[in-house]
Amino acid sequence: MVSVGIVGGTGYTGAELLRLLAGHPDAQVDLITSRAEAGIRVDSLYPTLRGVCDLSFEAPDAGRLAECDLVYFATPHGVAMELMPELIKRSTRVVDLSADFRIQDIDVWETWYGQAHTCPELVAQAVYGLPEVNRQSIRDAQLVAAAGCYPTAIQLGFLPLLVNDLVDPGSLIANAASGVSGAGRQAKVDNLLAELSDNFKAYGVAGHRHLPEIEQGLSNAAKQAVALTFVPHLLPVIRGIHATLYAQIKVEGVDEKALQSLYEQFYDDEPFVDILPLGHLPQTRNVKGSNLCRIAVTRPQQRNVVVICSAIDNLVKGASGQAIQCMNIMLGLNETAGLESVPLCP
Amino acid sequence: MVSVGIVGGTGYTGAELLRLLAGHPDAQVDLITSRAEAGIRVDSLYPTLRGVCDLSFEAPDAGRLAECDLVYFATPHGVAMELMPELIKRSTRVVDLSADFRIQDIDVWETWYGQAHTCPELVAQAVYGLPEVNRQSIRDAQLVAAAGCYPTAIQLGFLPLLVNDLVDPGSLIANAASGVSGAGRQAKVDNLLAELSDNFKAYGVAGHRHLPEIEQGLSNAAKQAVALTFVPHLLPVIRGIHATLYAQIKVEGVDEKALQSLYEQFYDDEPFVDILPLGHLPQTRNVKGSNLCRIAVTRPQQRNVVVICSAIDNLVKGASGQAIQCMNIMLGLNETAGLESVPLCP
Amino acid sequence: MVSVGIVGGTGYTGAELLRLLAGHPDAQVDLITSRAEAGIRVDSLYPTLRGVCDLSFEAPDAGRLAECDLVYFATPHGVAMELMPELIKRSTRVVDLSADFRIQDIDVWETWYGQAHTCPELVAQAVYGLPEVNRQSIRDAQLVAAAGCYPTAIQLGFLPLLVNDLVDPGSLIANAASGVSGAGRQAKVDNLLAELSDNFKAYGVAGHRHLPEIEQGLSNAAKQAVALTFVPHLLPVIRGIHATLYAQIKVEGVDEKALQSLYEQFYDDEPFVDILPLGHLPQTRNVKGSNLCRIAVTRPQQRNVVVICSAIDNLVKGASGQAIQCMNIMLGLNETAGLESVPLCP
Amino acid sequence: MVSVGIVGGTGYTGAELLRLLAGHPDAQVDLITSRAEAGIRVDSLYPTLRGVCDLSFEAPDAGRLAECDLVYFATPHGVAMELMPELIKRSTRVVDLSADFRIQDIDVWETWYGQAHTCPELVAQAVYGLPEVNRQSIRDAQLVAAAGCYPTAIQLGFLPLLVNDLVDPGSLIANAASGVSGAGRQAKVDNLLAELSDNFKAYGVAGHRHLPEIEQGLSNAAKQAVALTFVPHLLPVIRGIHATLYAQIKVEGVDEKALQSLYEQFYDDEPFVDILPLGHLPQTRNVKGSNLCRIAVTRPQQRNVVVICSAIDNLVKGASGQAIQCMNIMLGLNETAGLESVPLCP
Repeated sequence: MVSVGIVGGTGYTGAELLRLLAGHPDAQVDLITSRAEAGIRVDSLYPTLRGVCDLSFEAPDAGRLAECDLVYFATPHGVAMELMPELIKRSTRVVDLSADFRIQDIDVWETWYGQAHTCPELVAQAVYGLPEVNRQSIRDAQLVAAAGCYPTAIQLGFLPLLVNDLVDPGSLIANAASGVSGAGRQAKVDNLLAELSDNFKAYGVAGHRHLPEIEQGLSNAAKQAVALTFVPHLLPVIRGIHATLYAQIKVEGVDEKALQSLYEQFYDDEPFVDILPLGHLPQTRNVKGSNLCRIAVTRPQQRNVVVICSAIDNLVKGASGQAIQCMNIMLGLNETAGLESVPLCP
Repeated sequence: MVSVGIVGGTGYTGAELLRLLAGHPDAQVDLITSRAEAGIRVDSLYPTLRGVCDLSFEAPDAGRLAECDLVYFATPHGVAMELMPELIKRSTRVVDLSADFRIQDIDVWETWYGQAHTCPELVAQAVYGLPEVNRQSIRDAQLVAAAGCYPTAIQLGFLPLLVNDLVDPGSLIANAASGVSGAGRQAKVDNLLAELSDNFKAYGVAGHRHLPEIEQGLSNAAKQAVALTFVPHLLPVIRGIHATLYAQIKVEGVDEKALQSLYEQFYDDEPFVDILPLGHLPQTRNVKGSNLCRIAVTRPQQRNVVVICSAIDNLVKGASGQAIQCMNIMLGLNETAGLESVPLCP
Repeated sequence: MVSVGIVGGTGYTGAELLRLLAGHPDAQVDLITSRAEAGIRVDSLYPTLRGVCDLSFEAPDAGRLAECDLVYFATPHGVAMELMPELIKRSTRVVDLSADFRIQDIDVWETWYGQAHTCPELVAQAVYGLPEVNRQSIRDAQLVAAAGCYPTAIQLGFLPLLVNDLVDPGSLIANAASGVSGAGRQAKVDNLLAELSDNFKAYGVAGHRHLPEIEQGLSNAAKQAVALTFVPHLLPVIRGIHATLYAQIKVEGVDEKALQSLYEQFYDDEPFVDILPLGHLPQTRNVKGSNLCRIAVTRPQQRNVVVICSAIDNLVKGASGQAIQCMNIMLGLNETAGLESVPLCP
Repeated sequence: MVSVGIVGGTGYTGAELLRLLAGHPDAQVDLITSRAEAGIRVDSLYPTLRGVCDLSFEAPDAGRLAECDLVYFATPHGVAMELMPELIKRSTRVVDLSADFRIQDIDVWETWYGQAHTCPELVAQAVYGLPEVNRQSIRDAQLVAAAGCYPTAIQLGFLPLLVNDLVDPGSLIANAASGVSGAGRQAKVDNLLAELSDNFKAYGVAGHRHLPEIEQGLSNAAKQAVALTFVPHLLPVIRGIHATLYAQIKVEGVDEKALQSLYEQFYDDEPFVDILPLGHLPQTRNVKGSNLCRIAVTRPQQRNVVVICSAIDNLVKGASGQAIQCMNIMLGLNETAGLESVPLCP
């Protein structure tokens, strides 16, 4: 049984790690930290875990954490980088769910996150945690920076087109929508039910922090710089990200069926990417609670714009499930362990 | 044109006063206060009011307020009683939407609200603002304490039974559910969409502050002490209160049809109480945005428990609409002025 | 590996059986029937099951069904009783999720369901499938009539009070609210999102079919006739039933703590009933997707009305999970097998 | 007082006409038809209209309808064209809310709607009912084909760019999302709350009937053929359309501020188009229940893609409100009469 620690367990991604790991056959959570809630039982904050989790939150301590086989950071950005050097020094393996180690260009990171990075040298050695792209590197990594929610849905959707150089990389568009759990468990007026329910809006149009992460990943895949227009929207739902992706085909003779085949082959061996049959479209409810990314390929009206629809559960494949998938790879466990439950629908 | 001021205009009841008064033929808002937002345009906080409201929030000032024909308090409890003596001294007429002046027994108020009352003498002269009960007193009142949201739905539902002495006053039950706007526009984790959507729960079972207000009103109507078990619940909806009321009939020979007639006659002249035909039940959406209280009378299985269903929009008949109705009565305007719009459905 | 068949697999309870059984370590679905969808792949109707269920619907055939170790009926009422005699003759064991065999008094059943019962003799031998009451009889039953959704939440809530003769059985009140999946997957205007979302209403106040089922169960427990006023409401949520139960205490000296102890002891050995600590209340989201019933005991204001709050997921403990729990008992499997996943929250 | 008739009053747009016209100072509904509901009181189908509408549905009769000053068709496509010739012959003025007369190219209409058009000659004389484009023609028209919901939000968003020839007309993208009332009040499993709530999906990606309508309008504005990729999505909300529009700027030196000025000037005199200040984005709740279209102009990252966000209430500016606005213009009434209420928010 693998022993796991969680730093920052009071947010939604921490709770989701606990939910998923409760059903993991080969891993158990032995330690969960929160400065604010130290001493409080986990199941008093999250009653869903009554009878499943007997832990109390404790203040973070590097020594205690280093005793674990693997440590997750489920913290806001800026926290993991403070504690990371000490854990890395002690040879602890880490999966960071935050944004601290995702972006290789430190200047870009500092511009978008508005603060100095305190351990740029660890950024260089961190592996970007998107198994469909980096499975081999994840296996041997000490520090994995699990991919973000929008970046996962959008990259998995665009990758086959870019890797195969089928579309113009200079005019990509990602119109995406997220459930509100993506905004975390913070007390903000903007995220009240009375503000968001029966409502829909775009946000962060001028620039969202996931843009550089996505452009970095897509540029790596395309082996050239890509330009993406990324507009996130906020849905009155709890979980789910849906991305509608637009790209201009630049190659002749690639019809919808050919694109479909291409996608099916590209993800043929992936346990968590499901290319839907032609004519079917993903719904966020069809991935709810699961680690799946469901993708549909369309070429409307046989015109030269390809439209890809991609759906994930932002808390699972977009966060905690992805982190567990990375752990499974890092520790040589079955990659799908703890991640096999069927989406909850209806 | 009547000139109106609003103290504490940043919450939902303040915004709702502005929405409703924008359509009032005989009243206009000339002044709206907020310490926190002083200097900020109202329509930058509430974009729905763009083009309709040209005011900016200003810090409260008794002199400025006293120039208005009537002042509304749309503040949390404990605020109105601080400013009230000065306004009353200046002969300003006031409708208070908060709980400060609703409960005549100061000890009871202080117990439930956990603070000392600073002007008990004004409580004595305040008139409880439920027009269906107190229309005459409201007309001449200087200070009206508008009835609360749950208390409105529940009292209007029980009144005909108690006034006519048909039911046991010692075992009343009010099972009520409210939309989350009733909790106000405060940043609280508990009221996030991610916490409340696709969810339902009871709260405050041990004791809710509206209990003494309701028992006071029902006891006055029954001319004897009543005992009410009141359990509020939180709905994943924005607006609406639905109360399901249970009482034991203590009189022979009052069948469902007789009860229906009784209710229809009791509210025959009321512009905002609609007794639904037998066999129909109210829905919160059928009062959304309107000042109506819709009520259904049933006697399931012809047993001895009467079940009354009563629905209002908590922000209108349960707050701002009721306050405007009181104002209309106080100032001799048409009682329905500004309150005639049809519910928004679907 | 136990072989299972499902009759009527196109509704929500059928889909939920498939979801839960996909994770069952000791049972697998080998057969699923639907006249209307015969020949159609299950995962084309329920895309959540892509990669998990390789079956197609087939027309019901008693011979094929009888080859299974156990057959579930997930059909509307009136269907199971047609096919049941043939299956019973062939010694097939059956769990019926519909209402056909729940009510022992045939006259009562025929009155409430508006049709003749075609095999009253099988009603007599059917065991009511509420394991917390009938575990021993379920073990040996050939035909189990799984308890309904409202009846489960309400009976589990009232049982300790009635079995211990603490409350007046003549004035019980159950105010309950259900998510809309309880109405099934039928095309009805009343159940459209545009009709139900941002809305709340009571329904069936004059008489709901679950009333006789609940009164039968409670009377058995109380060993005397009980009278229940039962008012169901419709929530704008997908899953979840919350029941708020009221009873008049008739015994002196039973304070809230004593009641709490009583409930904890009563359900001490039950794997799926969780008595919350004093001061905590259940929420439907805290049981979502799980087979749990979470219950809170309160005695507001120390008055003589006990208020019990009880929450289940109507599709799990209220239907398919309960049916699997019954199967586990009948077939000597681990009672919690396939039912151990943590509620999905948020 | 203008006398108005409504054909097909049982759907959501019919009900919305009744709601809005109830508050219209100069018009009243004298006649409302429905074959299916003939003889039934309107307020028994729509209890929100209790006390406001005293009519019963009647079977459609051309003679009766022709007595009205103006007739609305709030029918599914294919119905208006059957009755229209007779009304036009009788000189009745008509606003058709359906799609029958919106598309000038009969072949295109027949291809997309899958049936023959029975009165192509009336299509030629019909005026497209988007007042911001066709106000003068509407004034004198006998038959106005009110613009559809998506087409209104999308055209109002793109028009300033195309009329001023600032963007590439060959690569427009409209990513739009609609509340479910847009699908009408039909009993369909796909539109159940249990299917749509807590969910999001694209639909009609291969081709939606509003595409040719939008391309026709945009091509007229651009004075050249435009090519639009249009992907609609379904929101778990009742009302509201939000369109996120993407276009490639083809002119140098037009920064975000210049675009903002352009939009403000373009719509300066329009009573129902509100260009939000730079930095603000529309939300569907900020137009709920109102006839407003709120638009934001952005140029993210100062790159060459302009992003326009446009929000309307699909039942008001996208249907019944627009139809009333057209009527007001046709009959020389105040253009904003009956359409001045403030959005219902929260």
